Amino acid sequence: MESELIAYLRERLPAHLCLRLGPGDDAAILSLGDAADAVVTVDMLMDGVDFRVGEVDPRRIGRKALAVNLSDLAAMASEPLAALVAVALPRRGGMALAQALYEGILPLAEQFNVAIAGGDTNSWDGPLVIAITAIGKAPPNASPGRPPWRRSGARPGDALLVTGDLGGSILGKHLDFTPRVNEALLLAERYDVRAAIDLSDGLAIDLSRLAAESRCGAQLDLASIPISAAAVALSRATSKGAGNTPLDHALGDGEDFELLLAVAPDVAARILADQPLDVPLTHIGQCVADPGLWQRNERGEVSSLRVRGYEHSFD
Amino acid sequence: MESELIAYLRERLPAHLCLRLGPGDDAAILSLGDAADAVVTVDMLMDGVDFRVGEVDPRRIGRKALAVNLSDLAAMASEPLAALVAVALPRRGGMALAQALYEGILPLAEQFNVAIAGGDTNSWDGPLVIAITAIGKAPPNASPGRPPWRRSGARPGDALLVTGDLGGSILGKHLDFTPRVNEALLLAERYDVRAAIDLSDGLAIDLSRLAAESRCGAQLDLASIPISAAAVALSRATSKGAGNTPLDHALGDGEDFELLLAVAPDVAARILADQPLDVPLTHIGQCVADPGLWQRNERGEVSSLRVRGYEHSFD
Repeated sequence: MESELIAYLRERLPAHLCLRLGPGDDAAILSLGDAADAVVTVDMLMDGVDFRVGEVDPRRIGRKALAVNLSDLAAMASEPLAALVAVALPRRGGMALAQALYEGILPLAEQFNVAIAGGDTNSWDGPLVIAITAIGKAPPNASPGRPPWRRSGARPGDALLVTGDLGGSILGKHLDFTPRVNEALLLAERYDVRAAIDLSDGLAIDLSRLAAESRCGAQLDLASIPISAAAVALSRATSKGAGNTPLDHALGDGEDFELLLAVAPDVAARILADQPLDVPLTHIGQCVADPGLWQRNERGEVSSLRVRGYEHSFD
Repeated sequence: MESELIAYLRERLPAHLCLRLGPGDDAAILSLGDAADAVVTVDMLMDGVDFRVGEVDPRRIGRKALAVNLSDLAAMASEPLAALVAVALPRRGGMALAQALYEGILPLAEQFNVAIAGGDTNSWDGPLVIAITAIGKAPPNASPGRPPWRRSGARPGDALLVTGDLGGSILGKHLDFTPRVNEALLLAERYDVRAAIDLSDGLAIDLSRLAAESRCGAQLDLASIPISAAAVALSRATSKGAGNTPLDHALGDGEDFELLLAVAPDVAARILADQPLDVPLTHIGQCVADPGLWQRNERGEVSSLRVRGYEHSFD
């Protein structure tokens, strides 16, 4: 029952400084403290598309549903404050499923000091749907280079940096990744970042979005793309099929949830020398004046790069 | 395609003062202006539960999905600022459906000056799901009686007032109701309100929630409940079945989306004399010390009132 779940949650949710009024009323009241601006984002995940109930521990599903939203806040270098959790639960087993989802959500929320401000709990005869809204802080009067970061703002000549390594997320990372919140906040504190995006649909398509919003093009140095062990494993496992190379996976696979940054060349040099994060930062290319995506191979030849990645299709 | 829908939206969305960055980035940036606190709420609506795709103009579905959230903000007397729209669209016909949803959302958003800050657009093989998050302003340093209103705060002896008339919403009002935002803001400006809730699941169950949060009971004067024409019509239409009276419908039907207020007796007298709204305010009972719900019939006899209304059930 809906009311039992709310009672269960109210017992388990820790107090949070920003939460003037938590779950149980018509809405939650959230203090933004010294921030006059809020950064808001929502992601909806569905059974059969983003995960498969029955094949995956539902705690990992709940965790992922929050993590993808924190990754969006990280892409803006916004400090997370609170989240709202809306679910459509299958009628049979819904209470146990809801509790398991929260057993995945709550530890991640605690890790990043996110208040669960409320939500909406529904049941139906359909598959599980979970939509989490995340709310973060933004300093007022943003100036170029300072947070909140945007996709626009990159200029021809800017270096493109990426955290971590890419591809093959479907083998497990897409459920268990750590959103790059702390990395983004540290980078924002120390360096000017001209544009940023999190890699949710694939390096090539997400880079094309950053470039389009910045009204420039982008060129990747193929030899420098950090390829994950999972991309290599996935390429081996599927080589009898589509025959994608590890590089193809790194360029096209979705759900890496790494950060892609555009920074001025001198800032890039400092970041790469400092390597200030626990995870590597790699220089993978630069912004260029010609619109579109370009690739440079090991021989220095430049050609057009096919945009690939995940887009929801409907007609 | 997802990107086409975003392009369609970015062309149609009007500029909004509070929106520093709208749809198209990883998150939206929202200025709260002079408010340090945000009021946040989310509601998820599903095909087959809250509406039926194929039987209802999808513009009414989109409108309802936003309206239920504005009703939650009205219950707090919070001025709406922005909304985020997450949808899971059926793959076939998804683009036309999404556009029709927005054709219902946008006029209501404009009517209440709500910025569409962003969202998430997905497709799948399942039925339509739409989850809207609404964000409103709250004055900082709330004091008792002043907004944001809460469910708690009512005291024994407080009068219970309700806007409009109740019951039979399923005949049409549940899709086309006007959220009581303006009414709430006007009342909050002129009168102290000790507790409030919007009637989404039914008068009896929602009153029981307000009373429980306020740690008191509540007694309804059955003869004074404002019964809608739709409740009478529904009672007639179904009298061969369950045989619910119009009063039963007024007490138990969900989705009235009227405001239920608890106010001090002298404030109630002022409000009832002023009748400051375009819609009637009716005195339907009072808060009492004994926990639980009570009813007083026309002969003045008091007895226990069965809690009835809608709850999502799952096990």
